[in-house]
Amino acid sequence: MSRASRASTKDKAAAQAVVGPAIVLVRPQLGENIGFAARAMANFGLADLRLVAPRDGWPNEKATAAAAGAYATVDSATLYETTELALAKTNYVIATTARPRDMVKPVMTPESAAAELLSRQKQGQTCAILFGPERSGLDNDDIGLVDALVTAPVNPAFASLSLPQTVLLIAYEWQKQAGPGGLGRATRFDGPAREGTPLPNTRPAEREEMFGLFEHLEAELDAHGFLRPAEKRPTMVRNIRNMFHRMQLTEQDVRTWRGIVSSLTGGKRRNP
Amino acid sequence: MSRASRASTKDKAAAQAVVGPAIVLVRPQLGENIGFAARAMANFGLADLRLVAPRDGWPNEKATAAAAGAYATVDSATLYETTELALAKTNYVIATTARPRDMVKPVMTPESAAAELLSRQKQGQTCAILFGPERSGLDNDDIGLVDALVTAPVNPAFASLSLPQTVLLIAYEWQKQAGPGGLGRATRFDGPAREGTPLPNTRPAEREEMFGLFEHLEAELDAHGFLRPAEKRPTMVRNIRNMFHRMQLTEQDVRTWRGIVSSLTGGKRRNP
Repeated sequence: MSRASRASTKDKAAAQAVVGPAIVLVRPQLGENIGFAARAMANFGLADLRLVAPRDGWPNEKATAAAAGAYATVDSATLYETTELALAKTNYVIATTARPRDMVKPVMTPESAAAELLSRQKQGQTCAILFGPERSGLDNDDIGLVDALVTAPVNPAFASLSLPQTVLLIAYEWQKQAGPGGLGRATRFDGPAREGTPLPNTRPAEREEMFGLFEHLEAELDAHGFLRPAEKRPTMVRNIRNMFHRMQLTEQDVRTWRGIVSSLTGGKRRNP
Repeated sequence: MSRASRASTKDKAAAQAVVGPAIVLVRPQLGENIGFAARAMANFGLADLRLVAPRDGWPNEKATAAAAGAYATVDSATLYETTELALAKTNYVIATTARPRDMVKPVMTPESAAAELLSRQKQGQTCAILFGPERSGLDNDDIGLVDALVTAPVNPAFASLSLPQTVLLIAYEWQKQAGPGGLGRATRFDGPAREGTPLPNTRPAEREEMFGLFEHLEAELDAHGFLRPAEKRPTMVRNIRNMFHRMQLTEQDVRTWRGIVSSLTGGKRRNP
């Protein structure tokens, strides 16, 4: 097994180590939005979709179409007549709201909600996040069933997030904290990307290689009369060296630059 | 001017203190997606939308419909024939990609990209984020024009984010770091919500009030023979007190509980 595919297997195991919270859509109106929400859940590693009295019944063709491949999430969605029934077996519930409610109840950001959910899911608690109907949001009776509220940091002048957008943000913050840490799609040969600068088939240049390039370039620049007048030479050399340092050259890059300098000075032809 | 409305004015000033990066959609295919992207931008305080050769021309009715109120963002969008022209006056550009590219170029999370963009915008640099066409993403020539890549932490097995979803995540991370810090919609009477437990028209209970409630309740429980046998009384009392502490009672809540105890023991009638 290659190192890359072993890392990828490990990633998958880590991703599945903690079960995510249930996403509970209360009286959703549009099938498309259920589908978009399912897609966002699949994108960010959530699987437990619960529907309370969807307006247009269930199953819903528009939901399946909008899920754009996240069919398993749509197909395994469970249906409930009331919010109470959907939450019956949960231990901790957070509700999404777009505006402050006159209730003495903790308000969290999506980020802090994800941290709280992760901590509780790790302890084996079953958690859920409640989302209200598109037009009105959750009513105060539904809000009365939950432990805390989550509200996103939005532009207060244009604060209206759509239902699937809200599911996406919550699921994204969950994945950020609970996921395997990879970025983007896993390719056939590598796992997902990692933060930082990848160096495929090469390595950062060593100082000795950089110094060799500097001497080569500066000797040619001296020979061509570029580094004049003499009193300005030290500053000019330092500036040029600093530009090369900012490039963060690889070993391959240094060889490319040696070739460029040789080529421009006629010392070597690429294809003689 | 009330304290709440002063805070709200201050929020607005802070929100506008740093100009956000431009969102550049390269050869977008669906007008709806341009509209959804514009809405997400408005939700998270971004205003500069640039379109490079949109497939169905510009303006586009479907974009306006999908913007769902973010008309200013759609109407002020600027149109370019090439990516180079759209980026001409920018200083720093990040491209969104769904998969690692074989390029020696820094890869960032949406979070670290937002931090880098904020730092540069504060220095007066003009920054942009590049998004590719729905079907294919950015081609390698477009990627060759940018300083860094940004990729979201997704479920590697279902990594495909839609164009407006990707715009939403990037804009959300921008707002998290650059925004005024409020949560959700500003209401007419209050500013946006804040993290923590709001206490409208009340305050956390003082210990003295809690102790008064405990004595009242425990006296009644003793009188009714609940706290027996005697050797278990201290544990029972501690457990009950701890439940009340976990409630984080307000001053109003303590009065409610005193009323409940009086009511249940027949000592007082609510409506005599």
